[in-house]
Amino acid sequence: MNIKCEKNILLNNINIVLKSVASRTTLPILECILLIADKEGFRLISNDLELGIETSNIEADILEKGMVALEAKIFSDIIRSMPDGDISITVDEKNVAVIKNGKTEFKILGQNGEEFPTLDKVEKEEKYSISSSLLKNMIKQTKFSVSTDESKPVLTGELIEIKEGNLNIVAIDGFRVSFRCTNISKDFKNAEVVVPAKALNEIIKILSDKEDSIVNLYFNDNHILFELDSCIIVSRLLEGEFLKYEQIFTEDYNTRIKLDRVNFLNSLERASLISKDNKKTPVKLEIKNDESLVITSNTEFGTSYEELSIDLEGEGLSIAFNPRYLIEALKAIDDEKILIQFMTSLSPCIIKGIDNSDYKYLILPLKINE
Amino acid sequence: MNIKCEKNILLNNINIVLKSVASRTTLPILECILLIADKEGFRLISNDLELGIETSNIEADILEKGMVALEAKIFSDIIRSMPDGDISITVDEKNVAVIKNGKTEFKILGQNGEEFPTLDKVEKEEKYSISSSLLKNMIKQTKFSVSTDESKPVLTGELIEIKEGNLNIVAIDGFRVSFRCTNISKDFKNAEVVVPAKALNEIIKILSDKEDSIVNLYFNDNHILFELDSCIIVSRLLEGEFLKYEQIFTEDYNTRIKLDRVNFLNSLERASLISKDNKKTPVKLEIKNDESLVITSNTEFGTSYEELSIDLEGEGLSIAFNPRYLIEALKAIDDEKILIQFMTSLSPCIIKGIDNSDYKYLILPLKINE
Repeated sequence: MNIKCEKNILLNNINIVLKSVASRTTLPILECILLIADKEGFRLISNDLELGIETSNIEADILEKGMVALEAKIFSDIIRSMPDGDISITVDEKNVAVIKNGKTEFKILGQNGEEFPTLDKVEKEEKYSISSSLLKNMIKQTKFSVSTDESKPVLTGELIEIKEGNLNIVAIDGFRVSFRCTNISKDFKNAEVVVPAKALNEIIKILSDKEDSIVNLYFNDNHILFELDSCIIVSRLLEGEFLKYEQIFTEDYNTRIKLDRVNFLNSLERASLISKDNKKTPVKLEIKNDESLVITSNTEFGTSYEELSIDLEGEGLSIAFNPRYLIEALKAIDDEKILIQFMTSLSPCIIKGIDNSDYKYLILPLKINE
Repeated sequence: MNIKCEKNILLNNINIVLKSVASRTTLPILECILLIADKEGFRLISNDLELGIETSNIEADILEKGMVALEAKIFSDIIRSMPDGDISITVDEKNVAVIKNGKTEFKILGQNGEEFPTLDKVEKEEKYSISSSLLKNMIKQTKFSVSTDESKPVLTGELIEIKEGNLNIVAIDGFRVSFRCTNISKDFKNAEVVVPAKALNEIIKILSDKEDSIVNLYFNDNHILFELDSCIIVSRLLEGEFLKYEQIFTEDYNTRIKLDRVNFLNSLERASLISKDNKKTPVKLEIKNDESLVITSNTEFGTSYEELSIDLEGEGLSIAFNPRYLIEALKAIDDEKILIQFMTSLSPCIIKGIDNSDYKYLILPLKINE
């Protein structure tokens, strides 16, 4: 192989594929980046067998076709440290790569590129298109409630569901449900997959923030393919039945409050300071008929007390929560004002928008002894 | 105690004293900040018994004098999270502190302030004044070569020496000597103390970057006192004889090169990339009579080769170094061009300025088998 590529173009593409390079694996070639120069152009591939990334055709001069797998950390460190300008990479039949720019030259031993596992094939049959920045936000606004309990593997991922023209993303752990939804197109067939959270954490780093950038999704039984401008990403899917989340979000309530999201968030963050070492100290909410909300916490270290004004519909109520669950949901919302619905002090609350049905968060309360 | 203080003023002062709060100690009161309101005003004190900090008089309304020791982390978190504006702190005879602003209120249990160890006394006899930002830089530009070897405790600190109108700072580990010097005033008496590096690491975080800010130093046999605008800092000194560093910096050389500091630094950083897991792979320097410097490294992962042009005085030379030692010294220098002097390939090199005697760095070479 013999190619010439501008340093920063090469580095940008390396930074993309670095997201799915394996670390500490029993198959050392997975710690490499595969460089391919063939009739389709010059591309980089990485694959940790859960997630694989292949860059689009990179602007480069191909003087001689070929392929090689280079240890990702050393290769990326070398390219990052190179002086600006054109970098030439030549590889001989023994997989020795010479990386050169001016009077700076590195020689590193690569591995046979033929041995590198390429990405799993996903036929591009049914295509689902969505704004890249919107998809990124929807994942960010739900992924904090993905379960980390490996005994229910399907809940360690997020449900991506296409249903009657909507794309829904849902994450559930034992204590809460996070739901985001957006309208895409009535023409799309219904579909439902569960993508591992680990893969989504890497994918959101690659998804563009640009408003007009589109990502295409393709599914098969075992994989999801994300087609971006800069690369394609293929992730393994999680098997198993995802929880039926819809019936949990009841419309009924005995108490409904409307309040300022940021004020409530700040109050909860203050109330949780009193617990040292991040213990799950409950924070108590008292919704009073005089349209005030009293937020208190009480630990061996001290007590906190705070009052907020609210709009109240229905009865007053006392209820306690793990403050982290409320805080994470409130941080994921953009709206200035929100609604929170309650049935009893032992049933979950539902946080939702006022004129916005794009999100819903359900949180189980904690039982407290008065 | 009953005081009222603006949130951000209080927070700035808390951030200063946090630097010497003890963590994981057998004397729990050292994990506190002492609040004192007395006839000298309102002040905060922290003390981990190595380093102690006392703020200057803080702008506050003292409604009732008193003192209390409050757990530093919880107290600082609470103040940081408070809404902007005046914060009132009242403490009762049982050391229960009520911290309040508007409808936000915390109650935390403090400890008896009388039990808090105040700072060691240093009589203000001989005063040494120096620019705060200059002192900060001098410490930064030497502290990387403080020894971490606890078997020679005196070398785990920096020598601060006042000698014939100069203030010198010196750090020595087994492999190198870093020296910084500045002219202060001929009127100052000679003096010599060794300050623990751990204390200096905290002190440089407090020293101002402002050009015109002055710090006054006072010494006694066991302590150094730094008098700043915002606070006083008292550090314990290290006992023992510091190494006689002066005779090590010989003026003689067989080879002297003049070269561009940043180019050399970049080349060394590239050459050290080839060693995975930060092993101390030697980098080899070949000074050639054609006024070029060839920088190479060679490990199981590959080789690097780089050429720089230099000005040469004397003979060519081959020598090897731990690249980290060269890199740290070069990063500590501001000059664009530097001199490096060599005797033989087995004796130390000395890095110095061209028309600047404010710094000198000595580094031992590595022995390499050709």
